[in-house]
Amino acid sequence: MLPTIDTILARIAAGDLTHTELLERCITASNAPEATSVYLHTWFDSALATARAADAARAAGEPLGPLAGLPVSIKDLYDVAGETTRSASVARDDAAAATSDAEAVRRLRAAGAALMGRTNMTEFAFSGVGINPHYGTPRNPTDRSVERIPGGSSSGAAVSVALGLCVAALGSDTGGSIRIPAALNGLTGFKSTQRRVPLDGALPLSRTLDTACAMARSVTDCLRLDSVLADQPLRPAAVPASTLRFAVPQTLLLDELEPEVGEAFERALRLLREAGASIEEIPLQELGELAALNAAGGFSAPESWAVHRKLLSTRRAMVDHRVVARIERGAAMSAADYLDLIDARTDWIERVEARIEPFDAILCPTVPLLAPPIAALAHDDAFFRANALLLRNTAVFNFLDGCSISLPCQPPGALPVGLMLSHAGMLDEVLLSAAMTVETLLHSAGLGLPPDGLM
Amino acid sequence: MLPTIDTILARIAAGDLTHTELLERCITASNAPEATSVYLHTWFDSALATARAADAARAAGEPLGPLAGLPVSIKDLYDVAGETTRSASVARDDAAAATSDAEAVRRLRAAGAALMGRTNMTEFAFSGVGINPHYGTPRNPTDRSVERIPGGSSSGAAVSVALGLCVAALGSDTGGSIRIPAALNGLTGFKSTQRRVPLDGALPLSRTLDTACAMARSVTDCLRLDSVLADQPLRPAAVPASTLRFAVPQTLLLDELEPEVGEAFERALRLLREAGASIEEIPLQELGELAALNAAGGFSAPESWAVHRKLLSTRRAMVDHRVVARIERGAAMSAADYLDLIDARTDWIERVEARIEPFDAILCPTVPLLAPPIAALAHDDAFFRANALLLRNTAVFNFLDGCSISLPCQPPGALPVGLMLSHAGMLDEVLLSAAMTVETLLHSAGLGLPPDGLM
Repeated sequence: MLPTIDTILARIAAGDLTHTELLERCITASNAPEATSVYLHTWFDSALATARAADAARAAGEPLGPLAGLPVSIKDLYDVAGETTRSASVARDDAAAATSDAEAVRRLRAAGAALMGRTNMTEFAFSGVGINPHYGTPRNPTDRSVERIPGGSSSGAAVSVALGLCVAALGSDTGGSIRIPAALNGLTGFKSTQRRVPLDGALPLSRTLDTACAMARSVTDCLRLDSVLADQPLRPAAVPASTLRFAVPQTLLLDELEPEVGEAFERALRLLREAGASIEEIPLQELGELAALNAAGGFSAPESWAVHRKLLSTRRAMVDHRVVARIERGAAMSAADYLDLIDARTDWIERVEARIEPFDAILCPTVPLLAPPIAALAHDDAFFRANALLLRNTAVFNFLDGCSISLPCQPPGALPVGLMLSHAGMLDEVLLSAAMTVETLLHSAGLGLPPDGLM
Repeated sequence: MLPTIDTILARIAAGDLTHTELLERCITASNAPEATSVYLHTWFDSALATARAADAARAAGEPLGPLAGLPVSIKDLYDVAGETTRSASVARDDAAAATSDAEAVRRLRAAGAALMGRTNMTEFAFSGVGINPHYGTPRNPTDRSVERIPGGSSSGAAVSVALGLCVAALGSDTGGSIRIPAALNGLTGFKSTQRRVPLDGALPLSRTLDTACAMARSVTDCLRLDSVLADQPLRPAAVPASTLRFAVPQTLLLDELEPEVGEAFERALRLLREAGASIEEIPLQELGELAALNAAGGFSAPESWAVHRKLLSTRRAMVDHRVVARIERGAAMSAADYLDLIDARTDWIERVEARIEPFDAILCPTVPLLAPPIAALAHDDAFFRANALLLRNTAVFNFLDGCSISLPCQPPGALPVGLMLSHAGMLDEVLLSAAMTVETLLHSAGLGLPPDGLM
């Protein structure tokens, strides 16, 4: 894992490091065995050239973009001019090459980022597990003894940051695909409010829920990425913990927690209380309606069916059967049911927003589980059960059209656990302000710190 | 027919008329036999009180809203607090009363309008004909010898203005429901860009296409209404005709014109050319794609099915079978086909906008027909054929998400013919500027003038 961006930039400013050296270390790390299956394609030469240009510009005192020379990875579902966007599916091998960069990629490039490569993911971004039968499954680097899932769908994205192959990863979050792998790999993952970042050039899973966003090492790093991606600099500021008011919903989000997750969450709540924050348990019974609302497949099934049905008519056998099963659920949904779902969601959002409006953020564990061993998910039953649990908490805030951030909160040496702070749509600045304070408290208690051995 | 709003206000300012006198005349006219079936419910007492208040405020020198004391009618599909919104259907007789005014109604009220009553319409706003088997069909007042259709769906709205029962009518336009009846009754009907006016509290036909807008006596009157409805005052200004550049698409819009319509349209084009305007024939072959794009019922069928399917499951027999037939087409559309339609429309809009961008407006006849006799549409075949023709030209600009205005252009004594000026979405100001110039030219040539006998 690399230090945070501010730390890196301070070391570069101090002359201890150059962008070129940083890039070379990232490339070396990318070629190590534990990085297998992380990148599906790399652009190391152009990334190195970008780093050298940043060093030269810095030496010449020229102005630098906010991500100048910093290594960033790109999830495989984003268009890059001249390349085929596969979304980690072999069925799209012969799709036409993109004629231009996705808007998110264009903004990162314009900010000076050294784009490192396309990261592996769950095929078509379906599932929160991170297993990909075509391109291999990036191994979660936080456990050296057991092969655990990286989480998904932005699996390679998370491992690229966790292994220190880059400072941040452009991913996407439809039901938790940024926050779940961030939580399982000890990273910070920020799902911004969807409408803040354009989706042009991103192969859709759900046009209603897809969010172009990033994961990184800290709240401040996520903010730096967000300012570029949204082309709108938010100005959150840490506030005294004693002024913060949090809610912990008692419906759904605390069910079936693995003991280590429950303990880490309770420890975080104690810490916040001791620092003077107000923490209120609220029923938020509206969360109990979600299963029925999404019983027919929610938005993802019909919307991904609309995108992929032509491909499935000729290449169904080439697609992971677990992905096919979930996409094909969308074939049965009528237009009227789809419109009813839109209206039911609008009504639900209005009611939930009224309940959470008084708070600085909603708190819950990002994921109720520790990262399961890959071998435990070999059978479909276990896979789908784990998948549903992995997505359960995060997906709530996609359905809310909200913003949400996962912070690592595990004790030293333990497997990562995510603490999720969430809020209603367009309250990203309020959310990030609270997250900054919480992150500082966690770190000062020795929680959620990166493993030893930063570069 | 009443004079234009400016003329009325000048007479009031000159002391020749009071708001109260105006209202009393409108009430008297509403009770005349030719006004049968125009209003489904009236609020004459409160309208009179509003008029008296406007007179008092004027006498006291108090500030007046832009529609203070002016009689305006409301299409039956808009919510009015405390009343059931039937959308001219007997099947909704027992629907719950609205708890608040529709936003469009609220804005008219806030602007000081004297709301006269709920106007008749095609059941659920389906069809451009204006026939309603439950509440009677308002007779088109422009022909005293033959009972002709008023056009729809805002049938009562148009007749309320044409008979001088009010100065303007709040209607709605999904496929032409403002412009068709405006054209057939010698009025000016302005369909603004949809997103400029909120639809809250309007019973939907098509959430994608429905537009809350009004018809009145002139472009300036429509502009006054639009400023209130959109809560955004546009500032169009008539420009020299010699600076105007119009396009006349040669695909679809000029097919099957009745001779009188073709002649009126050609006469208008000659007039514009003689005044120095540029008029270019363009192919606009994209219009030929519309039939295939909407073959499965377009947006209206699935969207109205979503709204009405519960009602139809219990009260199908109470609904006009011609309306049922069109709504039920929507049951078969899948969510994926609906999403494909959205995407196909977006692509089509982009291509058409690129073609029409150089022009001040697109010109065509609003409706290819004169108002057919009601008796001629007794059989379903004739009805559906006439309906398709009535909607054909106007619906193009709903699908374009554009703005469009119909101006009367018939010679004196003839049945009304509409000249339609249209443009891309959000170019309402450009469109209205051109329309002001065209209206002046038409009037100076004695075309499109109201019948004799204004109040």
